[in-house]
Amino acid sequence: MADHPAATPASDAPQTIEGHFVLHDAYAVMWPYWLAQAPQERSAIVTEAVGWLQDETGVGQLHSALYSLLGQKGDLMLIHYRKNVDALNRTERSFKRLRLFQFLKPVYSYFSVIEASLNEATAIAQHKVADRGLVAGSAENAEAFEVEMAAQRKALESRVFRFIPENRYLCFYPMSKRRGDKHNWYALRPEERRGLMRGHGRIGHKYHREVVQVIGGSIGFDDWEWGVSLHADQPLVFKKLISEMRFDPASSLYAEFGPFWFGIRQQPDDLAVLFAGGLA
Amino acid sequence: MADHPAATPASDAPQTIEGHFVLHDAYAVMWPYWLAQAPQERSAIVTEAVGWLQDETGVGQLHSALYSLLGQKGDLMLIHYRKNVDALNRTERSFKRLRLFQFLKPVYSYFSVIEASLNEATAIAQHKVADRGLVAGSAENAEAFEVEMAAQRKALESRVFRFIPENRYLCFYPMSKRRGDKHNWYALRPEERRGLMRGHGRIGHKYHREVVQVIGGSIGFDDWEWGVSLHADQPLVFKKLISEMRFDPASSLYAEFGPFWFGIRQQPDDLAVLFAGGLA
Amino acid sequence: MADHPAATPASDAPQTIEGHFVLHDAYAVMWPYWLAQAPQERSAIVTEAVGWLQDETGVGQLHSALYSLLGQKGDLMLIHYRKNVDALNRTERSFKRLRLFQFLKPVYSYFSVIEASLNEATAIAQHKVADRGLVAGSAENAEAFEVEMAAQRKALESRVFRFIPENRYLCFYPMSKRRGDKHNWYALRPEERRGLMRGHGRIGHKYHREVVQVIGGSIGFDDWEWGVSLHADQPLVFKKLISEMRFDPASSLYAEFGPFWFGIRQQPDDLAVLFAGGLA
Amino acid sequence: MADHPAATPASDAPQTIEGHFVLHDAYAVMWPYWLAQAPQERSAIVTEAVGWLQDETGVGQLHSALYSLLGQKGDLMLIHYRKNVDALNRTERSFKRLRLFQFLKPVYSYFSVIEASLNEATAIAQHKVADRGLVAGSAENAEAFEVEMAAQRKALESRVFRFIPENRYLCFYPMSKRRGDKHNWYALRPEERRGLMRGHGRIGHKYHREVVQVIGGSIGFDDWEWGVSLHADQPLVFKKLISEMRFDPASSLYAEFGPFWFGIRQQPDDLAVLFAGGLA
Amino acid sequence: MADHPAATPASDAPQTIEGHFVLHDAYAVMWPYWLAQAPQERSAIVTEAVGWLQDETGVGQLHSALYSLLGQKGDLMLIHYRKNVDALNRTERSFKRLRLFQFLKPVYSYFSVIEASLNEATAIAQHKVADRGLVAGSAENAEAFEVEMAAQRKALESRVFRFIPENRYLCFYPMSKRRGDKHNWYALRPEERRGLMRGHGRIGHKYHREVVQVIGGSIGFDDWEWGVSLHADQPLVFKKLISEMRFDPASSLYAEFGPFWFGIRQQPDDLAVLFAGGLA
Repeated sequence: MADHPAATPASDAPQTIEGHFVLHDAYAVMWPYWLAQAPQERSAIVTEAVGWLQDETGVGQLHSALYSLLGQKGDLMLIHYRKNVDALNRTERSFKRLRLFQFLKPVYSYFSVIEASLNEATAIAQHKVADRGLVAGSAENAEAFEVEMAAQRKALESRVFRFIPENRYLCFYPMSKRRGDKHNWYALRPEERRGLMRGHGRIGHKYHREVVQVIGGSIGFDDWEWGVSLHADQPLVFKKLISEMRFDPASSLYAEFGPFWFGIRQQPDDLAVLFAGGLA
Repeated sequence: MADHPAATPASDAPQTIEGHFVLHDAYAVMWPYWLAQAPQERSAIVTEAVGWLQDETGVGQLHSALYSLLGQKGDLMLIHYRKNVDALNRTERSFKRLRLFQFLKPVYSYFSVIEASLNEATAIAQHKVADRGLVAGSAENAEAFEVEMAAQRKALESRVFRFIPENRYLCFYPMSKRRGDKHNWYALRPEERRGLMRGHGRIGHKYHREVVQVIGGSIGFDDWEWGVSLHADQPLVFKKLISEMRFDPASSLYAEFGPFWFGIRQQPDDLAVLFAGGLA
Repeated sequence: MADHPAATPASDAPQTIEGHFVLHDAYAVMWPYWLAQAPQERSAIVTEAVGWLQDETGVGQLHSALYSLLGQKGDLMLIHYRKNVDALNRTERSFKRLRLFQFLKPVYSYFSVIEASLNEATAIAQHKVADRGLVAGSAENAEAFEVEMAAQRKALESRVFRFIPENRYLCFYPMSKRRGDKHNWYALRPEERRGLMRGHGRIGHKYHREVVQVIGGSIGFDDWEWGVSLHADQPLVFKKLISEMRFDPASSLYAEFGPFWFGIRQQPDDLAVLFAGGLA
Repeated sequence: MADHPAATPASDAPQTIEGHFVLHDAYAVMWPYWLAQAPQERSAIVTEAVGWLQDETGVGQLHSALYSLLGQKGDLMLIHYRKNVDALNRTERSFKRLRLFQFLKPVYSYFSVIEASLNEATAIAQHKVADRGLVAGSAENAEAFEVEMAAQRKALESRVFRFIPENRYLCFYPMSKRRGDKHNWYALRPEERRGLMRGHGRIGHKYHREVVQVIGGSIGFDDWEWGVSLHADQPLVFKKLISEMRFDPASSLYAEFGPFWFGIRQQPDDLAVLFAGGLA
Repeated sequence: MADHPAATPASDAPQTIEGHFVLHDAYAVMWPYWLAQAPQERSAIVTEAVGWLQDETGVGQLHSALYSLLGQKGDLMLIHYRKNVDALNRTERSFKRLRLFQFLKPVYSYFSVIEASLNEATAIAQHKVADRGLVAGSAENAEAFEVEMAAQRKALESRVFRFIPENRYLCFYPMSKRRGDKHNWYALRPEERRGLMRGHGRIGHKYHREVVQVIGGSIGFDDWEWGVSLHADQPLVFKKLISEMRFDPASSLYAEFGPFWFGIRQQPDDLAVLFAGGLA
């Protein structure tokens, strides 16, 4: 890029690695209309939908999951992880062909791609190589760094090309970093941003045995910058984790939050229970 | 957490104790459609709903309450207190199976968990132990503190594992603490926050004979940080209490308010009066 | 309140006197559905509604008024003044039982209670007593103040327990005082607030022959802090009054406005004209 | 007003002269429902509407105009100029009685009154009198000023009591002056505001041969402070004029804009073309 | 403009050249209603729509394109480029006459005109002329500049009078420049704005082989100031490009973004696949 010497250095924007494309897809059931159908009709409709969901949930289509939602925001949410955008669009389109779809009212969706930061991985690789006492700038050093980075990248790939966590409870919310007149994340120096993200990561790490966090990047894909999914087996842990983070400067000064969605994991064949008005 | 020495101290975020999970669930009645039903049909539908509400209102399901709402925001609000999230979700799902549900339009819901602050309890326990003149740091002192804290915690538990207050009038609103460029609650030092909350609590305490206040924490559960329910036997006291608090710095500088809901308590079998267009 | 010495002084929040509870209730007519009814059917439906409105408008139920609205926000607004919240809720509930209601779409409502400030009354009483040269702190002085305050309070009561002004034009809007990072009404010193309100009152007073102003307090009742109703016989006077106030610091720095509603007063039996698509 | 010596000087708020009352009234056509009608039925319905619009468009009712709208915001907009508020309300009410109305969905309306500033007129009158060298403060001077002002006022009246410009393209948007923490139009000194408005007026004047600008004042009438209508025979001139103004301090620091509406003028009998899905 | 010497210099607002008028037009399909039609009926309806779209897509009507949308925001988006506003309005009106239209729910549209900045072109022309060593101010110099500008303008015209890029993926979003209390794009000096836009352009240029960017100016036409369309053959490149730009001061301090739309290009006869619930 020799003809654009003053361009923003490529290292300024955080480097990320991307994995599966994700759709969060929430619906309300039109209960009176649904319950007005004959029982055997309802049964056939649910059977068709269970079959579809089992196909999509399996590793063939990659992975899909079903949740019962709390409150009036909606009745159910589907999460789909797919290898590419076309497969994701095909999944949502095939869902609309189900007979069950006519009893659903779309209430929210969010489109993102699982991402992980390469910056920390790079720092770790640099530390590891430095620890081995190789001469800085030497070919030996560069090679060791490349080997280490390949290992780091492979570890990250296993995180971004993953399956949907199995935990019973889900907390999903979109968020962006603030670009206010005074506090503007994007006007911070890279080392400030990295320092803030490290502190933020430490809080997440405190809860890593209880909460699985999946970060979907959505700049250019949807209306916020990230879609955050937390998965846990105990609902109060979401409140504790997010409350603690809210006092962390990366959140207190720089985070803007969208709507919060709380779901309870259901298996594909639990659809019959859900559509009978129960919870599995 | 020895490997994360710079992590936010655990004491920085306020320590809370959580109790029952709560759903506020508001509906508008589709009057013309409802009134178009035959009288004996309406009667049967209301009878089924009264039975359901009596079951849910009893201590078996834990506790539910019914309110007639003021203004066009809605006609009625249900409040449910439940022991866990699954029970809460089961209650809302079973409500949707009632025949009455087809005449209702969902207008608002709020999901939270009753919470109380452990910080003040800790301060009280420390004061009580100090008053007894025990040597600071001694085993005797530590033991006395533990005994006192157990008593404090038990008192708080009776507040967070409670039933719905019986008062005739309800004022419900969600709120968050401000995270503005200048006034940011989450960027205050812990002692500043505690000082502000103490002043705030004093105003609440002035009204404690007239108003029962139930605080639902909702970080990670719904779109605001708290859902506040005030219960009283006289409607003007809500205006006086909230007006007075609005001049308190914890509110004037740091509170953001959502919509306000005003309700009049009705008993389960008042549903018949309500659905005949009256008020019990 | 001896055990809470640092509590906000009771005198800090403005002292108010409250009167009638008020509901503003706006609707759009579903014209095509309405006009599809047979003429004699429409006539019977209007007759029932006129009877209801005449009953509610009379001093028995206290007082109700009807307005034709400008623009697509709605077709008609009802204002109800009632002695208590239960009566207000009963009125709106009985309205929903009218056959006319099935042709209406709710578009807005606002719930408040008429209020007047006691602070100015207190200042006037203090001035009057001071003018009589009584010794400050003497029992004579205190008694004279009490007598004067009783008179002031009685005058205010006649303003807050009033009927709906009869003027042809209505301008209604909800508003709150700003709580911004820089300009925060609730963080001002009491004397600053009183000075600003006096200046504000002077502008209102300039128009007192042309405009009747009714202030509904709504903290704890609805989504804004006040609902302001202006009543006049000439529509341009609203524009002149509000424009002039907008340059007054109490407004320019501290007021936030909700939607504006403009109505033309109609009598109960004008409903027949209104529902024939005309204006009385 | 001797008893209110500190009242805001009457000259502080800008002096305006008001003319015709204006309603902008936008609708979407429910095409599938409309197209499902039999051709001769559609023809009769359009004929009725054309007759109504011709009556309203003529100088009898004063003046109405029809526009085809761009984009999904709506299909058509009516503008009505009327002598008073009652006539405006009567026009919108009679429109709802048309059979065509049942195929329309209301999407936006704006209520205002055409206004012009008296301040500049006063300044011009003062200059003209000063140029004649009359002794300041003399009866001769005062009389000359009165004569000049009467002429100025008559010129303004011809602008505020006008007909709807005939140009093919319409750009309509509501706006308010900013009342922010830092930039607050209503907290500026009168001479600052006047200086800014003069600069702003100069840009408008540059385009006065290509664009007719009609300013509707709406403080107290609708949700913004003004409704601005630009009329031109070439669509790009709106973009050029508004872009240029956006860099002017009166706009860049002090203007807040509502939604923008773009319309193409149609004559009353073009309704037949419009409702056949074409454009005249 | 001799009588307005203080007017904003014409050079202050950026000079632009405008090309085709553009409509982005997004719809959701009412699937249950659509799927309830008989197969041969659906086939006939799609055939009619394919014919219409082929006509509009061809160079006769100028150019139209079809996209399948991701998520619940909508099912499909049409983009139309037309020579003038009337042609654009005629296209959307004729679309509404299609039988297919009755199965569509409008969800979003955006109206703009393709624009390019003349400022950079002027700078380039000045540089080129300067490089030739002609005497500044000479007739020779002026003539060379005119020749160069004509070439520059012709190059820009080929960019603004263009066809819709053929790439498979689309990212569309409206945006405005911030006019905040502290960071206000329109209050910057022209050279500051130009410097920021140059830095911004460099990032765009880095991606020019992978992303085609079409800028629609919409001041005076729609609710934001620009509608940005990015076209690429790989979806992640949108995320990388916009993320990188977000750290650039022209974006980080001065950009406000509307909703983001993500589409997958479909050919006219792919409508049959799309309306069978698939993706071509």
